[in-house]
Amino acid sequence: MGKKNKEPQVCFLPEGMRGPVAPGTRVDRAARNLGVDLQSVCGGHGKCGKCRIRLLNSAGAGQSVAALSPPTKQEAAFLSEEELREGWRLACQSRVLSNAAFEVPKESRSGLQLIRKQPGPKCVTPDPAVRSQTVKMPAADPTSPSSDWKRLAGQIAAGAGKNCLYPDAAMLKTLPETLGSGREVAAVLRKDGECIGLLAPTGRALTGVALDIGTTTLAAYLCDLYTGEVLATAAEVNPQISCGEDVISRIAYAAAEKAGRKELQHLVVKTVNRMIASACAQAGIAADSVADMTCVANTCMHHLFLGIDPAGLGRSPFAPVVTRGLDLKARDLGIQIAPGAYIHMLPAVSAFVGADTVGVMLAVDVYPAKETVLIIDVGTNGEIVLASGDRLVCASCATGSALEGATLSCGMRAATGAVERVRIEPETLAVEYAVIGSVGDKHAPAAGICGSGVIDAVSQMFTAGIMKKNGNLDRRCLAPRLKRNGNDVVFVVVPAEETAGGRDIVIDQDDIRAVQMAKGAIHAGVRLLMAETGARSVDRVVLAGAFGSVIDPVSALSIGLFPEVPPEKVSTAGNAAGDGARLALLSLTMRRRAAVLADKMETLELTAHPNFQREFAMAMHFPHMRPRHPGTR
Amino acid sequence: MGKKNKEPQVCFLPEGMRGPVAPGTRVDRAARNLGVDLQSVCGGHGKCGKCRIRLLNSAGAGQSVAALSPPTKQEAAFLSEEELREGWRLACQSRVLSNAAFEVPKESRSGLQLIRKQPGPKCVTPDPAVRSQTVKMPAADPTSPSSDWKRLAGQIAAGAGKNCLYPDAAMLKTLPETLGSGREVAAVLRKDGECIGLLAPTGRALTGVALDIGTTTLAAYLCDLYTGEVLATAAEVNPQISCGEDVISRIAYAAAEKAGRKELQHLVVKTVNRMIASACAQAGIAADSVADMTCVANTCMHHLFLGIDPAGLGRSPFAPVVTRGLDLKARDLGIQIAPGAYIHMLPAVSAFVGADTVGVMLAVDVYPAKETVLIIDVGTNGEIVLASGDRLVCASCATGSALEGATLSCGMRAATGAVERVRIEPETLAVEYAVIGSVGDKHAPAAGICGSGVIDAVSQMFTAGIMKKNGNLDRRCLAPRLKRNGNDVVFVVVPAEETAGGRDIVIDQDDIRAVQMAKGAIHAGVRLLMAETGARSVDRVVLAGAFGSVIDPVSALSIGLFPEVPPEKVSTAGNAAGDGARLALLSLTMRRRAAVLADKMETLELTAHPNFQREFAMAMHFPHMRPRHPGTR
Repeated sequence: MGKKNKEPQVCFLPEGMRGPVAPGTRVDRAARNLGVDLQSVCGGHGKCGKCRIRLLNSAGAGQSVAALSPPTKQEAAFLSEEELREGWRLACQSRVLSNAAFEVPKESRSGLQLIRKQPGPKCVTPDPAVRSQTVKMPAADPTSPSSDWKRLAGQIAAGAGKNCLYPDAAMLKTLPETLGSGREVAAVLRKDGECIGLLAPTGRALTGVALDIGTTTLAAYLCDLYTGEVLATAAEVNPQISCGEDVISRIAYAAAEKAGRKELQHLVVKTVNRMIASACAQAGIAADSVADMTCVANTCMHHLFLGIDPAGLGRSPFAPVVTRGLDLKARDLGIQIAPGAYIHMLPAVSAFVGADTVGVMLAVDVYPAKETVLIIDVGTNGEIVLASGDRLVCASCATGSALEGATLSCGMRAATGAVERVRIEPETLAVEYAVIGSVGDKHAPAAGICGSGVIDAVSQMFTAGIMKKNGNLDRRCLAPRLKRNGNDVVFVVVPAEETAGGRDIVIDQDDIRAVQMAKGAIHAGVRLLMAETGARSVDRVVLAGAFGSVIDPVSALSIGLFPEVPPEKVSTAGNAAGDGARLALLSLTMRRRAAVLADKMETLELTAHPNFQREFAMAMHFPHMRPRHPGTR
Repeated sequence: MGKKNKEPQVCFLPEGMRGPVAPGTRVDRAARNLGVDLQSVCGGHGKCGKCRIRLLNSAGAGQSVAALSPPTKQEAAFLSEEELREGWRLACQSRVLSNAAFEVPKESRSGLQLIRKQPGPKCVTPDPAVRSQTVKMPAADPTSPSSDWKRLAGQIAAGAGKNCLYPDAAMLKTLPETLGSGREVAAVLRKDGECIGLLAPTGRALTGVALDIGTTTLAAYLCDLYTGEVLATAAEVNPQISCGEDVISRIAYAAAEKAGRKELQHLVVKTVNRMIASACAQAGIAADSVADMTCVANTCMHHLFLGIDPAGLGRSPFAPVVTRGLDLKARDLGIQIAPGAYIHMLPAVSAFVGADTVGVMLAVDVYPAKETVLIIDVGTNGEIVLASGDRLVCASCATGSALEGATLSCGMRAATGAVERVRIEPETLAVEYAVIGSVGDKHAPAAGICGSGVIDAVSQMFTAGIMKKNGNLDRRCLAPRLKRNGNDVVFVVVPAEETAGGRDIVIDQDDIRAVQMAKGAIHAGVRLLMAETGARSVDRVVLAGAFGSVIDPVSALSIGLFPEVPPEKVSTAGNAAGDGARLALLSLTMRRRAAVLADKMETLELTAHPNFQREFAMAMHFPHMRPRHPGTR
């Protein structure tokens, strides 16, 4: 703690994302590490002027200098003197010297779908699978010229005493053009002695990419393998969506379409290559210098990425083709990084519990558990793990996509214009809401409602008495926002005049049922895991996943997404699956731990369980307890 | 020896190739193992009837049955009763039961270029890099279904107690379609536990391919990895010839042409794939069941096959990119065999002494040497190795292609129509010759003269006194075949009326000079190697290489290709480089031995040696000794 207190604290508004950074950290990297959406058109070279941010509480140049490094030439080119006085800076040009708060205006954001898969603050002692060693190539002895490789290996061995060095075949192809006698080169070496690439010895860090392949979203984190710093991130929508929204429809597509499996693999690989190129451009490095890679994914995405037939995942007995951790040559998958680099696929558990959940477990680090901890990872699917004593019992819940807002009457994904927070004043039943993309007090026009907004709304409707315990809207309630439409009743979250489309944004009875189904599936699953382990209560809950990181813990508790725990015992872990991939990228110890965790995790097949239907029916109802939000009376 | 005497001996005429075979061996395989050219259009299934051969000295059905298995239905379909009585059989349908001699008629030969790269009779205890294990897949447990791979690995481990099993990525893709629960499958496993492929458990042998990439010729041997038997061979002209006849011009092509290096690699890979497919068709197996591969090549062909820039091989200090033995995934080179199979590249020594020479040394097995042994491998280049005590000193000689017959006035490669043997009756100076492709006493029409024919002719001209010690034709000699043409004198080997082209096939003074240059380079090289090792004489000479296997040892001795040794101390080793590849394919012990040999071999750079020019000038002359052929007076 002592060390942390000396590190400057930064805070980005309006999100309020905050955290410590090392002195001298570039503001754009600090922002990205905290998950703040920030444009970077030129890749952080001060050439586009798009990453404008404002240092807040700036009383002039004096304080600005103290909190940040002095303005650069590039900043002077894009910012007037008056703007500089007001605290405006380019995030890629300024470095944090002491505590600072920033405003990130809307125009400095990428404005694309708000992909929340941002790296979390997890720390690990780096122990990467690759290292680089700078050597100087001696000239060949003309009387007895030994091979380029032999001379290189001799130099490496002289520096590190490594005996069993061997070359990758693709690396060998680059040897003649990279090595001139007398030139220095950084050899990239795996732990077992394989030389997988040669880099110009720029003194730059060795980098790797952690990849998270979600059903809906792909995220890549370019990391410094020695410090663990995230140098750049890239995220895109999984292009397989054009072949099916969910896992089941992708399995069907792979089976039904000619070369469907190849097409699905190609779609992801192409996008991943683009993401890597983009992240590398942001960080100013060449993609073919990326020396290592790890990947988490659910088991279907995992199989499709490897070009493996996923059919077995969709039919009884639901056996995956392979679950163990794999070290593959990235080129075997068509991934364009260093010529001989590997990609480590984290281990999966079963057809339903994938390497992504193993990544979550690696990141949340609750095993072996002193208390009973429930981990819920809500993405397009919901995975739950109960850590209790020496056991890790897990299951996948068919939540549908209601909790992501996708299938609701006015639902949308968590993008600009989505209602993400809803509060209902208990006395007046007046509605307040927050929209993604709003700046300060100025609402962005609402276009729909996303997952966290739906859970908030349902929770608040229940707390305010607008909705009954069984989920029915109370027709007798006189809330002004309850609109009767013949036999139907809907709750108006945003009236038409405040929306982008000029149409009420509502929650209807079907939406409530979809939320009930989803939360009922999770809650019932948790009950069965508890029964399996003999746990009588849950001590702590960790919400993970893109959705888990935006959900309001109290609202989640209030609708009964999981059994009762004190609200302060509910925490969010952000994109923990991606964090797990990052941890495994940085540390072989973490890879070994992932193997242990995957081995330890037991999958419970919920729908086959004799008690599931009963538990599910019970869990559909809303709980008696109505936890109050701080600030509501 | 006792065992060998019990094995049937077979002999194929008119070549007279003979050797022992295991009882029950198919005649076509016996023929191919001995290097006899035999058609196999249908792949040895008795469907084309093209591999007709005649059992000689057959006195009727009685003896035929004793020497060979009874005629099959397929044979009855292609051969009349009279033909069967005369001893005609299909080679692919008949099996050797006891000693037998066969006539191979011209129409049963492929008639293509006679590629002499046929496997030799070398023996080794098989100890291959891969093994197969037949396992039965258990069904997945529906309550806790483990992955296909886990169940497979469990079965393999149960059978063999192997712990560190791991799957190849490409093999995994084939897993779902190959494995059904309850189905049997043969898992192909490497020594380190990698599972590289799955085969249907046909009870067939595990097979591998030994590949010999020569500058001019490619040869592939499909072998049974357990017995070492050569199941089929395939040979083709190296298609890179279209980009340059020799190593130097290919290096130039790779440097000068855009994507030249890629093109050269692609040409060879495409041809190798076709050869593998052809050999597999002959043996009736699928190419994707070929489980292992080894390769020998000179260092330039080696680099081009791997897609490595060969430029360094053509300029001082003549450093190769890599010489050590390499285990590469065959798919990384585009070679189409089992999905996860490797190709082992034998180690090379230097830019001039390649893995082919290491293969030769593996096959001739003279290290450590009790006597001083000289190994000469004459292909498109000439490599020489002197084994003396604990030392293995080697060099490459710029022989040009005269010894292959390619650049002579009437030269041609060793194909049908080439004069391959020449005898000059010392008294009458009458000329006898043999032509490749002749049957019995009937000459095929001569079209040119190949390497062995040239050496024979020059040797005989010298022995008969037609040519002087300095290589000049003796104008005063009254040999009827010496033709004066103004100032020029030529020796007519075949008069116009006996040739295919109606033009004399001659050897002129320039041809003799080219032979002198080539033999002088080799002889001078040997002298320098002797000086280097302190050896005062050579005890034994081994002639290897496609050319070495057809050269007449006495003629070679007579022209002074190497220092004097008793003629009975000169032996031929056939395509020893290919044999070396085959030995390494069959045995990991042999691969380790190849590494030891390559490490032990010292290259002497001849042209840089201060004494080379003097030795070369001396070696140009023909020697005093004139060894006589048996049969000449």
